[in-house]
Amino acid sequence: MPQEFEKIKRFIAVFSVAPSPEGPGDDACLLSKKRGRLCLTTDATIEGIHFCRKHFSLGDIGHKALAANLSDLAAMGAAADFWLCALGLPSGFGMRGLKALAEGMLPLAQRHGLRLVGGNITASPVLSLTLSLGGWASKPLLRSTARPGDKLYVIGSLGEAAAGLFAMQHALRVPKRFLQAQRRPKPWLEAAQAAAPYARAAIDVSDGMLQDLGHICQASGIGARLEASALPIPAALKRCFPKQALRFALCGGEDYALLLAIPPQKAKVVEQQWRAQSCPFTCVGNFINSKGIWLDGRRVSAQGFQH
Amino acid sequence: MPQEFEKIKRFIAVFSVAPSPEGPGDDACLLSKKRGRLCLTTDATIEGIHFCRKHFSLGDIGHKALAANLSDLAAMGAAADFWLCALGLPSGFGMRGLKALAEGMLPLAQRHGLRLVGGNITASPVLSLTLSLGGWASKPLLRSTARPGDKLYVIGSLGEAAAGLFAMQHALRVPKRFLQAQRRPKPWLEAAQAAAPYARAAIDVSDGMLQDLGHICQASGIGARLEASALPIPAALKRCFPKQALRFALCGGEDYALLLAIPPQKAKVVEQQWRAQSCPFTCVGNFINSKGIWLDGRRVSAQGFQH
Repeated sequence: MPQEFEKIKRFIAVFSVAPSPEGPGDDACLLSKKRGRLCLTTDATIEGIHFCRKHFSLGDIGHKALAANLSDLAAMGAAADFWLCALGLPSGFGMRGLKALAEGMLPLAQRHGLRLVGGNITASPVLSLTLSLGGWASKPLLRSTARPGDKLYVIGSLGEAAAGLFAMQHALRVPKRFLQAQRRPKPWLEAAQAAAPYARAAIDVSDGMLQDLGHICQASGIGARLEASALPIPAALKRCFPKQALRFALCGGEDYALLLAIPPQKAKVVEQQWRAQSCPFTCVGNFINSKGIWLDGRRVSAQGFQH
Repeated sequence: MPQEFEKIKRFIAVFSVAPSPEGPGDDACLLSKKRGRLCLTTDATIEGIHFCRKHFSLGDIGHKALAANLSDLAAMGAAADFWLCALGLPSGFGMRGLKALAEGMLPLAQRHGLRLVGGNITASPVLSLTLSLGGWASKPLLRSTARPGDKLYVIGSLGEAAAGLFAMQHALRVPKRFLQAQRRPKPWLEAAQAAAPYARAAIDVSDGMLQDLGHICQASGIGARLEASALPIPAALKRCFPKQALRFALCGGEDYALLLAIPPQKAKVVEQQWRAQSCPFTCVGNFINSKGIWLDGRRVSAQGFQH
């Protein structure tokens, strides 16, 4: 790929990167250690699987790829620190496209203090973005440590991303916020970090609320009880899709909401923190000693979301 | 991707991975810090661009993807510690393929003490492997710190990987070692770590010896002088390709040999270390005050290697 170095230059020019060796420019980057444990995640976003360019601008694609990875750090209670960006570019993908992609990532990277420290650009049959993010967690939030009696909180709302995808697939006119939820999800790092000292477990909702809640329940060896009426399903979603809203919220995925297990005696202090952040939080149920997930008293299966 | 979890299980079953949170199984992994600076690299290997399955077994593909990333850590003087593996699998790529891919990676991962700590599996139009590796460097080796007078050493040999590729492309019968050099390159981590306390700069030869040497020269603001007769070009390569051997060695790429700048007064102690490791090393020239690369007294341009 003769233009590889030019393309790397163009991409990183959008970000304010440190010179080598803290930033790109050597065989690998070198970073100083920070407080807490090193927290790492990687995730790929591939054209035709995770997005199509008909419905997603390059800026949307960049934003969403970074948001999905940031959401994984949020779910660990980690503070974001650095990222590596491996791009696969189809033939004809030029400098302007690269700039648009990077500009979609920039606001999130800035907001969360993410330093671009390395990456890779290669030719590829389709556009692909494989990001690796790192951060530091002083009080990590695992999936396996929820306990019966913990309250189950949702940060953010549920169902809009799935509604946006449904609207794209069926060429429906829907409120723009559903499309935005699908294209520009918001990762909840500050909310997770505020809760981390008190919370017992967390996960982000990428595959669907029931499925991801199921991961916490399984890893912790317990179950959960939900109330449908408590779920943070936006009124616009219930109006627009009265029959499907609950399914979108429970099984839709890609909301990148956060689920947290909070001991009841800590609920008040955590809620105060979230209120101070103007963070949308909802208590939707609690964890229980018996296995399985129960919605309004009925057992439900953790159906997943397929991209 | 409904089988995603099954595929992840199958892949990681080949490795002995730590349970979550040090290994896969949560939203991200959590690692303890070690001595030195954190060293990170990422690299993608994509079907049709970096390999074709006609000439590479799945084991070869796995090995080479991991070796290329390990070689970047070697070039930093880092000790390998952990890796994240993001795989894109085309439809029909089943459990046996996944096992073969992992088994190609296993010996290298074991040999270099690499812990699989996370990853991602997704559908993809072609097979792709995007790995992110991390290690720790107590005395990092940069590109930018070579000085005039430093001796230029090559670890490993040059040209065989290019000869192997040429033979594949032109359906030539060649000694098996050329094909092995192309399919199963060897990263030189121990040699680099042994040299790290004394060496001034390093890079690995992925794009071609002249081009990669050019990166050191440019980053360090100096030049280099080479002797063609000193280059570690295997006799079999000279016999088989008498006219092309030198070009393969200088411009071929993918050898994953290491180039190191060693101050003359440290050469003896470093050579002793390499001898103790039975590591193939060659002094091929030295760095000079004036810019440019000179081969047998003639200036040469740092032509690159295009995949």
